[in-house]
Parts: sequence; structure tokens; C-alpha cells
Amino acid sequence: MGLFSKPIKTLDDLFVHTLQDIYYAENQIVKNLPTMAEKASNPELKAAFQKHLGETKNHVKRLEQVFQMHGQPVKAVDCQAMDGILAEAKEIMGDCGDAQVCDAAMLSAAQAVEHYEMTRYGTLIAFAQELGRNDCASVLKQTLEEEKATDKTLTTIAESRVNKQAA
Amino acid sequence: MGLFSKPIKTLDDLFVHTLQDIYYAENQIVKNLPTMAEKASNPELKAAFQKHLGETKNHVKRLEQVFQMHGQPVKAVDCQAMDGILAEAKEIMGDCGDAQVCDAAMLSAAQAVEHYEMTRYGTLIAFAQELGRNDCASVLKQTLEEEKATDKTLTTIAESRVNKQAA
Repeated sequence: MGLFSKPIKTLDDLFVHTLQDIYYAENQIVKNLPTMAEKASNPELKAAFQKHLGETKNHVKRLEQVFQMHGQPVKAVDCQAMDGILAEAKEIMGDCGDAQVCDAAMLSAAQAVEHYEMTRYGTLIAFAQELGRNDCASVLKQTLEEEKATDKTLTTIAESRVNKQAA
Repeated sequence: MGLFSKPIKTLDDLFVHTLQDIYYAENQIVKNLPTMAEKASNPELKAAFQKHLGETKNHVKRLEQVFQMHGQPVKAVDCQAMDGILAEAKEIMGDCGDAQVCDAAMLSAAQAVEHYEMTRYGTLIAFAQELGRNDCASVLKQTLEEEKATDKTLTTIAESRVNKQAA
């Protein structure tokens, strides 16, 4: 969750800090998805990355809405986990010697991104509910459902197409 | 997935590289879980961390078995994603001002760890099946099921106890 700007003393502090962490992560994904979409050779994978880019831009807006609903300034803190996941993704895009194997590697990296987001949104929803902020939880749930759906789509593409082509 | 020792040209190369990535990650978890178990104040969370430490040691052994089955030397490559997730976990353990909020933060970090493992094992199983290595897939599936069960246990502890105590 990056360097803390203030100590985490309450569940509310932890909720806000986790919001800042995933806000950074979503913005990093917006920056990186266009390259992945461009590099993907399988058309279904390319379309999935392009569609998810549009969704991710909306996730950023929803987070801004939640900051506002919770009376907090919109702020990002460095998320080392997402930095690590994306660094691995970039590395594999640079080192893959075959376009179809590269697709399989990018798809795997994208699923690692989705899983990180699913766990953080799951946590945020649980914290929001505990804090009596069902309104915030409701907004965050919309994003969680989209992340889960993207992960399922990626699994389907992997099993039906990309891994077979790479094998 | 760290610096590659050789270019990834085939799905088999990618399978082996992903094995090396998760082998590094599992070993890092074995190193870090004892501190988390020690620091946890909620007895159920402490017990869950202790139980999962035993399971994780077994996951390391299973990976060694898969390397052997696949005729590959046991090897780890630096996994920046797991390094990032664990760096966040350590930071939050250092910065949390309240034992119960710290429990909630550690639980959230542990779920990020589980989700990273779930996505990598899911990918490895799909690759193994595509490569006709159902024997390897079968061993990897045992670990995936344990990771999923741990994640569910953590969710139950979070919702029933830890988040309520932190709120």
C-alpha cells in the first residue's frame, strides 16, 4: 500500500488507505492496457483488453465517487503489488520469442491483475459494510462484478483459444 | 516473473517459468507467515496463519515434485508481484497503530497473497493440461484447492470477527 501518509489507527483509516491503493492500481492499469491490447495477436484477447480498458476508466470514476461519498480527497498511494504485477507483465512482453506464447503470457498477467483487484474490492466492500457505508459498498460491488466477469472471459479465451495456439 | 534466464519461446518454457515464479513466491510466504502468525492478536486468525504455514511448506514440496516430473531442475526466479504484496504487508504491520486494525490489515494482505497464488496455479493447471501433462496438473490442483479453502476461511474470519473488532 505504499508509504503511509498517516498512521492507520482505525478501520476507517484502513478503508481510505485501501481506496487510495486501488485508485493507484486502476490508474496504472489504464496506462498499461493499451500496450497489451496493441501487442495481443489473438483478436478475442485484443477485444477483451480493449473492452476492459473502457471498464477500467469507469472503475476510476467510481472510486472518485466513493472518495467523495466518504468525504475524502481523491488520492493515490503507491501500490507495490500492482507495480510488481505490471513489471512482470512488461518483462514478459519484452522477452517472449513467439507471438502466440506472448498472448498466453499476457493473458496470464491480466488474470493476476484481475485477481489483485478482486481481493482488494472484496476487502473494501467488507470494510464499507462494517463501517455502515452500504452506499459505498454498493458502488464498489459494481466494479467487483465486472472484474470477476473479465477474469471469467479471460479464462474462456485461454482455454478455448490462446493456450491451444501457443502449445 | 523476474529476469528470464532464457527466452520464452514455447508454452513449455512459459509453464516452467511460471513454476519458477510461484516456487519463489511460496518460499517467500514460508519466510513471512511466522511473523504474521506471531503478530496476529485474534486467535482464529493466528491459527489460520499457523495452519497455512504447514500447508505452504507442503506446496513447496509439491512444486519440487512437479519440477521433477517434468524433468526440470528445481529453480526459483524473482517474483516482483509477490515481493510487492509482501512489502505492503510488512509496511502495514509496521505502521498500524491498533492491534485489531492490524489484524484486519494482515488478513487483507493474506487474501491478496492467496489470490495471487490462485491465479498462478489456475494458469499452471491450464498450461499443464494443454501440454498433455495431466499428471502435473493433478498435483497442482491439490494446492489450488487448499489456497481456495484458505481464502474462504480468511473471508469467514474477516466477516465474523476481525473486521467487527476493528470497527
